[in-house]
Amino acid sequence: MTHRIAILGASGYTGAELVRLISSHPSMVVTGLSGDRKAGMEMADVFPHLRHIALPVLQKIEEMDFSGVDLCFCALPHATSQAVIAGLPRDLKIVDLSADFRLRDPAAYERWYGKPHAAPELQAEAVYGLTEFYRDEIAQARLVAGTGCNAAAGQFAIRPLIEAGVIDIDEIVIDLKAGVSGAGRSLKENLLHAELSGGTHAYSAGGAHRHLGEFDQEFTRAAGRPVMVQFTPHLCPMNRGILASVYVRGEPEAVHAALARRYAPEPFLEVLPFGTLPSTRAVAGSNFVHIGVIGDRIPGRALVVCALDNLTKGSSGQAIQNANLMLGLPETAGLMLAPLFP
Amino acid sequence: MTHRIAILGASGYTGAELVRLISSHPSMVVTGLSGDRKAGMEMADVFPHLRHIALPVLQKIEEMDFSGVDLCFCALPHATSQAVIAGLPRDLKIVDLSADFRLRDPAAYERWYGKPHAAPELQAEAVYGLTEFYRDEIAQARLVAGTGCNAAAGQFAIRPLIEAGVIDIDEIVIDLKAGVSGAGRSLKENLLHAELSGGTHAYSAGGAHRHLGEFDQEFTRAAGRPVMVQFTPHLCPMNRGILASVYVRGEPEAVHAALARRYAPEPFLEVLPFGTLPSTRAVAGSNFVHIGVIGDRIPGRALVVCALDNLTKGSSGQAIQNANLMLGLPETAGLMLAPLFP
Amino acid sequence: MTHRIAILGASGYTGAELVRLISSHPSMVVTGLSGDRKAGMEMADVFPHLRHIALPVLQKIEEMDFSGVDLCFCALPHATSQAVIAGLPRDLKIVDLSADFRLRDPAAYERWYGKPHAAPELQAEAVYGLTEFYRDEIAQARLVAGTGCNAAAGQFAIRPLIEAGVIDIDEIVIDLKAGVSGAGRSLKENLLHAELSGGTHAYSAGGAHRHLGEFDQEFTRAAGRPVMVQFTPHLCPMNRGILASVYVRGEPEAVHAALARRYAPEPFLEVLPFGTLPSTRAVAGSNFVHIGVIGDRIPGRALVVCALDNLTKGSSGQAIQNANLMLGLPETAGLMLAPLFP
Amino acid sequence: MTHRIAILGASGYTGAELVRLISSHPSMVVTGLSGDRKAGMEMADVFPHLRHIALPVLQKIEEMDFSGVDLCFCALPHATSQAVIAGLPRDLKIVDLSADFRLRDPAAYERWYGKPHAAPELQAEAVYGLTEFYRDEIAQARLVAGTGCNAAAGQFAIRPLIEAGVIDIDEIVIDLKAGVSGAGRSLKENLLHAELSGGTHAYSAGGAHRHLGEFDQEFTRAAGRPVMVQFTPHLCPMNRGILASVYVRGEPEAVHAALARRYAPEPFLEVLPFGTLPSTRAVAGSNFVHIGVIGDRIPGRALVVCALDNLTKGSSGQAIQNANLMLGLPETAGLMLAPLFP
Repeated sequence: MTHRIAILGASGYTGAELVRLISSHPSMVVTGLSGDRKAGMEMADVFPHLRHIALPVLQKIEEMDFSGVDLCFCALPHATSQAVIAGLPRDLKIVDLSADFRLRDPAAYERWYGKPHAAPELQAEAVYGLTEFYRDEIAQARLVAGTGCNAAAGQFAIRPLIEAGVIDIDEIVIDLKAGVSGAGRSLKENLLHAELSGGTHAYSAGGAHRHLGEFDQEFTRAAGRPVMVQFTPHLCPMNRGILASVYVRGEPEAVHAALARRYAPEPFLEVLPFGTLPSTRAVAGSNFVHIGVIGDRIPGRALVVCALDNLTKGSSGQAIQNANLMLGLPETAGLMLAPLFP
Repeated sequence: MTHRIAILGASGYTGAELVRLISSHPSMVVTGLSGDRKAGMEMADVFPHLRHIALPVLQKIEEMDFSGVDLCFCALPHATSQAVIAGLPRDLKIVDLSADFRLRDPAAYERWYGKPHAAPELQAEAVYGLTEFYRDEIAQARLVAGTGCNAAAGQFAIRPLIEAGVIDIDEIVIDLKAGVSGAGRSLKENLLHAELSGGTHAYSAGGAHRHLGEFDQEFTRAAGRPVMVQFTPHLCPMNRGILASVYVRGEPEAVHAALARRYAPEPFLEVLPFGTLPSTRAVAGSNFVHIGVIGDRIPGRALVVCALDNLTKGSSGQAIQNANLMLGLPETAGLMLAPLFP
Repeated sequence: MTHRIAILGASGYTGAELVRLISSHPSMVVTGLSGDRKAGMEMADVFPHLRHIALPVLQKIEEMDFSGVDLCFCALPHATSQAVIAGLPRDLKIVDLSADFRLRDPAAYERWYGKPHAAPELQAEAVYGLTEFYRDEIAQARLVAGTGCNAAAGQFAIRPLIEAGVIDIDEIVIDLKAGVSGAGRSLKENLLHAELSGGTHAYSAGGAHRHLGEFDQEFTRAAGRPVMVQFTPHLCPMNRGILASVYVRGEPEAVHAALARRYAPEPFLEVLPFGTLPSTRAVAGSNFVHIGVIGDRIPGRALVVCALDNLTKGSSGQAIQNANLMLGLPETAGLMLAPLFP
Repeated sequence: MTHRIAILGASGYTGAELVRLISSHPSMVVTGLSGDRKAGMEMADVFPHLRHIALPVLQKIEEMDFSGVDLCFCALPHATSQAVIAGLPRDLKIVDLSADFRLRDPAAYERWYGKPHAAPELQAEAVYGLTEFYRDEIAQARLVAGTGCNAAAGQFAIRPLIEAGVIDIDEIVIDLKAGVSGAGRSLKENLLHAELSGGTHAYSAGGAHRHLGEFDQEFTRAAGRPVMVQFTPHLCPMNRGILASVYVRGEPEAVHAALARRYAPEPFLEVLPFGTLPSTRAVAGSNFVHIGVIGDRIPGRALVVCALDNLTKGSSGQAIQNANLMLGLPETAGLMLAPLFP
């Protein structure tokens, strides 16, 4: 059986990535695409790499017909998403890729995003979309909130360590290197090739990055008491990929064992042999996550490094993984594509 | 039915690309891998991006058991390939990705490659692997010679124009921009990131590039009389991709029409609307070819631009396309994966 | 004696490059900077790489005091430039880096730029700024029009060949690879890192690129009769650099000899040994031009390749070279900085 | 007065960078160049970007005449350097860019480099070349040991904080992003463009990187008691640049004040306004260091980020700065060149 899929916000990178992945998915077909400013255009003109795929023309959301749609991916900008989703049919299954439904607490949302939530009842309904940790809730959910891509990378490295009690939860530093597609197809000076290629710098440092809201919410839930991490993202001259270097206090072998044990049954999580560290290049274009652990020369300290593709496992791949669960499909359907290297 | 596949030379980029593509192929499974200097190693250690795939350990070729193997891809270096293939079982289907069997004429081989061919009888048997132009012969062949990646790009742009008689065949200039993976995983100073990134330069200019041997052979065959093109490849700071800018004399609309007509039934060849030109970014990681045509301000001159991924359609994807034909599988099996962008 | 310099349009790349070069120039000091949208800001905030240099605050042009200014560089956008320059003091020496005064013929300007020139009397006064070919006129000029960066690269390769009569002037093809800084600090989707890095494509093909207006004007003047070239620029994932691959008909050795002879006395033009071709990497960040010639396997055909840095020799370095002449300074003053590699 | 300079190991990146910088130095001229495997070659053929400079032919070291040489830069590989320097005239001033003389303690050298030092008496004589902290000793020294490039970046961020007593010296984490030229012009698979571009990964993690020997030596000396830091370098797809993100415990404003105060008189050290962080792009190609400080949301924690160019301030620029002192020249002579951007 083929499920009919609508994608809102198909003219952005996560929208295009959804189309790419669905094009080789065995049980999904795209039947509706929205792209506000590009309504009326063919996807082949917006994203030439999708030219070979038969796709509907881009529409305005208000022109779309959701009858017969089995699931809707919402790849709209933050803030826009909550307004749009509030207007969609109440029985439509939705995976939202924006930040709008990630934080359960309306006060936390307002603190991190600077204004009150416009659809607090939907916020209460939404399930946090980190599949490996919310699998059962997601399978039952109508509305799933995709995680932040950085938030996913950090949680994959840290959550099992909190749960296993093998690290000092007050001493966690996340130094993260992010590819530029995470910022979307937005016209900003600092995203120009001439500004970005050949160099690196930190951004949203000092505790300002909004994905900290997710870290706080999720680590606190996992630990059963407040946890605050220190987090610095850096922009790197690469199009895809996140490398989270996480500094923790604990026995390195115990750290490695906790991760290896936790992820042994997971199809997309690969824990490398102790002492081996991952590269973003080895996961680019795929739904896989590579995690490595090494001990420091200072006893009782370990480095956990987590690599994933921000557009795939960090966003659109995760979204399809969640949609698979919501539609009763095999969780890995359409997602076992190998990374692209070199 | 699943076909059993061996890959010789699996520690290079084209070998890894074969493994990547076969990992989502519906009717192939890799049962043998050779990698001379890396014999005894796991592919996960040679190519970490393939870590999630269950694969045989790398062996030396002489240790491999070819009984039960349905088809063997040979991704060995030039010159090595002819010696190895001469020693393989005579009933084994083989797709060779090296340059060893591309030229039918032993004298031409010796002229371009600097020494006599070691297996001239195999050379006579081999079918040239440009699928869209040798489909029937390939389906019947035991030994297929994969084309040069640059040679493929140039031929896709030019062959239909020669066949249709719409251009002056004595006035063809091919200015080609090639990504660095075409040079393989070889330790050369000019392939270092520090040497290559952020700049561009011509190489093997002036008629020295060996893919000219293929152009000469194939264009002469298509035209029925000798054809010599002028060809300059340039190395660009990109990992995958070939962009062939071909300057021809002829009516631009007739040029476009000849290409559009010739490739209309082809699943992998996309001729863009007249006046639209392709980008390598829109085909990276895929088996698709994008071709565009624009007229020049000087009447009677046209520019044909052809974009493909050197590792996929230019090498390993083409090889699988040919193998599909040789094994009686649908030609597109495993090859409809969308390009990766961004 | 130190000359007082004003730079209009200092918040763009060519403006910043002027500041960089002047910071180690022995006889120039920047005394005024304009940047319309960034008026009131420090250059250190607009371009952090200039932080160590003592510079005036950015002003609006109308607030600037030109008394005491010896020479003004105008690095404003096309069309803006002619309006601004028309309002500057009539005795102020000016080097304009825009396209506004490159074409002498008002009809040609209107044809290429789509509207009538607003200051035709200044257009008549302006001297075309290709230093090596207009040295004497430039030394006497009040207003010099910097050349297009692509136009400079093509002319360096071709002009001496036309003058020496060693090529067929009706058979010139220029296939050019350009770095992204040539497009300026402008917010366009196709200039984003995510869109541009890792691939290449043609742009303004088919005779649409405005630098053809300069080619037509200058080659026709050099030849004494109309000359039209075929010209295709390609955007490459590099920040600086132009590589012009020029296909000509003529005896290769004669082509090389004509270039070597013509440029022997030139301090910035390096003709490589016959058969050696240049790389953009070897001139990046400098005012040097590298030119190479190789013969083709087809007799009577040659490839001339010219490499320069679009921001330096193609724009701001050329502007300073011209300003040196206009101010009676040594032509090479401040411009002998070696390229940056790697 | 012009000083005569010899450069040993001129065929590597730091050797070429010395030549580049000296080419615009007012008081130095290169009179001898060695390059063992490239002896007999012109520099123009080894490094085409230096083609415009009149330079001696590359020689073997044993063929070189050191009479009349005022100072010798030794840019040889580690271990080679100590043997060669032991054979040079005892009154020759030397700046060594290798790791051979950085560690004062022979036992520490043996521990980090895996074998006993071959010239321990020279090791005792050598002065550690971090100019801003050893200025007086360097001015008197005959043999100066250039620092590790990563070691320089970390020390610029941390040393003044230890000296000012504003941080907890047992809680220092250095997460560093390094450009690829730091690994030299060496033929290693992981330095190929196809392997490195478009991704990032950690290397020499867990306390294995040899620059830790310098951190230990220098921080312990500054603190007056043993200090061990945690240090993870990452390889980034950029040719030049180091970004050291240093996590410290202390009052952020006090941290910033200590750095600003310490570096106020330094010509090459720029401390950015509190809350502003640097980019490697803004120092590339220059001898400048940009340092920024931001407070974390967790009270009592700060992030210090230091950016420099590994080949210039991290190696060859530093070497010339030291040579200026040793020769009685102004410390900044030849080193005020602005960074190259974009």
